Amino acid sequence: MPLTPEQQAEIDALRDAPQQTLRATVPGMEKHLYVAHQVLDHGLVRVIDYMGDDAAICQAARVSYGRGTKSVQNDEGLIRYLMRHWHSTPFEMCEVKFHVKLPVFVARQWIRHRTANVNEYSARYSILDREFYIPAPEHLAAQSSQNNQGRGEILQGEEAQRVLRLLQEDAMRSYDHYEDMLSQDGQQGLARELARMNLPANVYTQWYWKVDLHNLLHFLRLRADSHAQYEIRAYADAMCQIVADWVPAAFAAFRDYRMDAVSLSAQAVAVLKRRLAGEVVTKDDSGMGAREWREFEEIWGN
Amino acid sequence: MPLTPEQQAEIDALRDAPQQTLRATVPGMEKHLYVAHQVLDHGLVRVIDYMGDDAAICQAARVSYGRGTKSVQNDEGLIRYLMRHWHSTPFEMCEVKFHVKLPVFVARQWIRHRTANVNEYSARYSILDREFYIPAPEHLAAQSSQNNQGRGEILQGEEAQRVLRLLQEDAMRSYDHYEDMLSQDGQQGLARELARMNLPANVYTQWYWKVDLHNLLHFLRLRADSHAQYEIRAYADAMCQIVADWVPAAFAAFRDYRMDAVSLSAQAVAVLKRRLAGEVVTKDDSGMGAREWREFEEIWGN
Amino acid sequence: MPLTPEQQAEIDALRDAPQQTLRATVPGMEKHLYVAHQVLDHGLVRVIDYMGDDAAICQAARVSYGRGTKSVQNDEGLIRYLMRHWHSTPFEMCEVKFHVKLPVFVARQWIRHRTANVNEYSARYSILDREFYIPAPEHLAAQSSQNNQGRGEILQGEEAQRVLRLLQEDAMRSYDHYEDMLSQDGQQGLARELARMNLPANVYTQWYWKVDLHNLLHFLRLRADSHAQYEIRAYADAMCQIVADWVPAAFAAFRDYRMDAVSLSAQAVAVLKRRLAGEVVTKDDSGMGAREWREFEEIWGN
Amino acid sequence: MPLTPEQQAEIDALRDAPQQTLRATVPGMEKHLYVAHQVLDHGLVRVIDYMGDDAAICQAARVSYGRGTKSVQNDEGLIRYLMRHWHSTPFEMCEVKFHVKLPVFVARQWIRHRTANVNEYSARYSILDREFYIPAPEHLAAQSSQNNQGRGEILQGEEAQRVLRLLQEDAMRSYDHYEDMLSQDGQQGLARELARMNLPANVYTQWYWKVDLHNLLHFLRLRADSHAQYEIRAYADAMCQIVADWVPAAFAAFRDYRMDAVSLSAQAVAVLKRRLAGEVVTKDDSGMGAREWREFEEIWGN
Repeated sequence: MPLTPEQQAEIDALRDAPQQTLRATVPGMEKHLYVAHQVLDHGLVRVIDYMGDDAAICQAARVSYGRGTKSVQNDEGLIRYLMRHWHSTPFEMCEVKFHVKLPVFVARQWIRHRTANVNEYSARYSILDREFYIPAPEHLAAQSSQNNQGRGEILQGEEAQRVLRLLQEDAMRSYDHYEDMLSQDGQQGLARELARMNLPANVYTQWYWKVDLHNLLHFLRLRADSHAQYEIRAYADAMCQIVADWVPAAFAAFRDYRMDAVSLSAQAVAVLKRRLAGEVVTKDDSGMGAREWREFEEIWGN
Repeated sequence: MPLTPEQQAEIDALRDAPQQTLRATVPGMEKHLYVAHQVLDHGLVRVIDYMGDDAAICQAARVSYGRGTKSVQNDEGLIRYLMRHWHSTPFEMCEVKFHVKLPVFVARQWIRHRTANVNEYSARYSILDREFYIPAPEHLAAQSSQNNQGRGEILQGEEAQRVLRLLQEDAMRSYDHYEDMLSQDGQQGLARELARMNLPANVYTQWYWKVDLHNLLHFLRLRADSHAQYEIRAYADAMCQIVADWVPAAFAAFRDYRMDAVSLSAQAVAVLKRRLAGEVVTKDDSGMGAREWREFEEIWGN
Repeated sequence: MPLTPEQQAEIDALRDAPQQTLRATVPGMEKHLYVAHQVLDHGLVRVIDYMGDDAAICQAARVSYGRGTKSVQNDEGLIRYLMRHWHSTPFEMCEVKFHVKLPVFVARQWIRHRTANVNEYSARYSILDREFYIPAPEHLAAQSSQNNQGRGEILQGEEAQRVLRLLQEDAMRSYDHYEDMLSQDGQQGLARELARMNLPANVYTQWYWKVDLHNLLHFLRLRADSHAQYEIRAYADAMCQIVADWVPAAFAAFRDYRMDAVSLSAQAVAVLKRRLAGEVVTKDDSGMGAREWREFEEIWGN
Repeated sequence: MPLTPEQQAEIDALRDAPQQTLRATVPGMEKHLYVAHQVLDHGLVRVIDYMGDDAAICQAARVSYGRGTKSVQNDEGLIRYLMRHWHSTPFEMCEVKFHVKLPVFVARQWIRHRTANVNEYSARYSILDREFYIPAPEHLAAQSSQNNQGRGEILQGEEAQRVLRLLQEDAMRSYDHYEDMLSQDGQQGLARELARMNLPANVYTQWYWKVDLHNLLHFLRLRADSHAQYEIRAYADAMCQIVADWVPAAFAAFRDYRMDAVSLSAQAVAVLKRRLAGEVVTKDDSGMGAREWREFEEIWGN
């Protein structure tokens, strides 16, 4: 359970104090404000603030394209046009700030997205809580035998239990020792910035993460994808729900032109054109390598 | 006069429609929303949206530093501490979006600040208006004789009039020819993306510019400085007023630790320490070059 | 002619002084070093320095993917895999620095690519040369009647001559007046930072532009594209030649997976699958808007 | 010992194959190329490639400032001027690429510097080595009693031994269990991307890190500083040595105007001026808070 009663009371107080504003406001997003969406066993994601809406994207585009955008009849059509043609700057005009609680190994993937603002809980200053991510049994997967970075079948029986026990025991023991090293009962106590090095990568950290909509969608494209590691995908999926409530037109366009879109190489375009003309094309005849052909067949059949 | 009656009516309508929100709200900033602040002869700057306030800076810092920030008694003290020690990430947690109308030569300086989001009016799509920056007589300055990038005395009499006449006539003639080239009366009309090349750098453009508070303060430190060109400084000065109303504690700290602060080199520190100990230090004895010594004396006397 | 005899002599001297290095070196790129490639009437692009080669991309990828990349048999295959799957960070490990001379209106498009390093000639410090871009007759195009940002037919006869004459005369006159305003014969002379505002957007400027390969390829995808304005495309095309000599495997992959690739929306994927199954699909039946359908038919026929 | 015999042989081979190049070359930097500088117990930093030198900084500045820089007689003077006045773009024209092996908790601080290119060893694809950072006895420090993020005295005797034993045993045990979970002797083996979560933050990772000189110096200012955690400072110190050999003039200017410089607030400037005029100023009379006054006295005495 990610929230203490004190935290819930604080959220309730914040949600009880509406203010008047002249800014663009989105009722669908207001309902998310401050509310914690649980992710994984102890994680959470929640919206702390937001700027802009679907209309703000169009407003910025119309500054750029002036009279040129009059021909697009409505906001939704304009947003789809912008997304389809990779006119990304209008999407940068919306901004959102999240509070996220997440395991350190997820944070390490996440932080690789550089165009964002971050304030992370500092284990130099402060003491981390005794909270560790332990996968639910249905996510305890074997190494994929085909894919170097993928997962295979779910572990069962004896092996599953042994793995879970190791993860749990090591987490608890390393935290016990973390506390022992920090302890000042009759001793000096190791510096916090050193003691933390004993904690494994499934310990939870938290941060504020602020990002513009264009870069958020780029993050979601990579991290809500089936190739992303399940644990970060769980966060991305939760954020997709939120973005769909915030900027519904932009999110629908994102789904059609990014998430569910397919990129065809020059070779793949040529093969599809030949197929459409009735020709049977084989791998050897395709100009593609074995791996690329396999990826092609997964979508287009053989 | 930068606003047409239609534009003013649109602003009035926006300002007449307050919404309820649970987000952090700043009354001092609400009063600026949408309102155009005139800058130069035809320019303007106005706030389109904002995210966060002084408290949001502290909130983010407390995520980072956890219990460590409890020792700082209040928000203002914490903000001053963060600014003094260059802890810049909490200031990135606030964001603001401006609409700016500005001459192209100012836009070219401005755009060098890369960490911001921009949508500019496109002269490929649309036709620019007949608006040019013509300096007021009190800003029509001679080249500085000492400083390669500075201004000297104000031009007077005959010379001033001749310069103003040239700027005005060339602007009007180049715009007449711009229109002539675009014209389709009995001809095809040159492409807009080509015709625009005839317009001089004092023609006005406009853009939406969105930036976080840390990068905005960095912009203001460089552009509200006495070494900045007057024309961009006029915009920076207008924005300083707005920021002071938005995040008063952060702006006060910025003034004390950045704008009105002085950076001392290793050599300058040594000289000041010797002076404090009663020694008379000369340039030859200072370890500084001629130019640096001159800059030092401007602040500390001789 | 973009180079003076002095400049050519300087380049010859630089090219006459080879040094020994242990760094990765590309003979195909060495031949470009310092040499000016002419672009437009007075413009140029030339390589000032470079870091890395095709092998450096693989070396970085192998740090990331460790043993996982052993299964890819050779560097070319690995590079194609990285490009196909948008693993962009290994391409960031190569860097190149160009010297570019270009008209101001091209510079204004170019600078929108923010992830790069720039030093531009400063018209606050220095006096610009009397050099202006005047389009060659075959590039003097009318406004497109279908496309708000495109060009239509080439202007002919009387209209072409009139446009050329206006561009040439306005450029020369504005430069004469620029000089007159700066002149100090018996007067003070206007500050350079002010006088420059009289010069039109086809005046030439120059800069050093340094960028990593990933961001360079992104620039080339947008600017060597048929929708880009001809004048910036001329620079992008010249740079494509250089990149093909520098990192031939990366450039070939870029061509197949980016430049000549096609992105299909969810709707377009569905339509193609139905067509492959023998169905006739019409616009009304496609789930696409009119504009998107037109774009789809341009590639896939009807 | 950070290098295996195979790795050393590979470095020797690379250092045995000089090439001819027309690029700017720095003998002092060539001697560092590929050579591993040991840092901490198992870490290393080594130069993989570099671009530019002190002269390249000046060359870029002279493009910007044109004739304006002729008045500065030599490169060193120009570089000092640029550094003193925060003209940072010419320093961005140099680039360097490092290979670094470092503990994960150090990597987590390092990665916060966003303006850089990174390829890190992936524990999703590959198996991490059994290498952990264990502090040398002289770095096993207690928590500072005054400073929330600092270290106090060195632990001694019983407490030191207990802490070292815990760190060593937990590292070995967690690695044993990591191997056990991955093991496929008669079982499926946990996915690598999951198993890694059991490893503590002192496990070593490695990456390629590429950065321009301006951002590298910013990194060094923060990380070679006495307030930085010792472990990242050890890397920054090693890099300072390398940069001093690469761009000696830029590094000397950096030392004088950044590392050994002092920033005075508006209040501190006022106090120093009063002291120089012979006045005795106390804290209560200074306009500074208690903490700021203490920091002030540390430098300027009382």
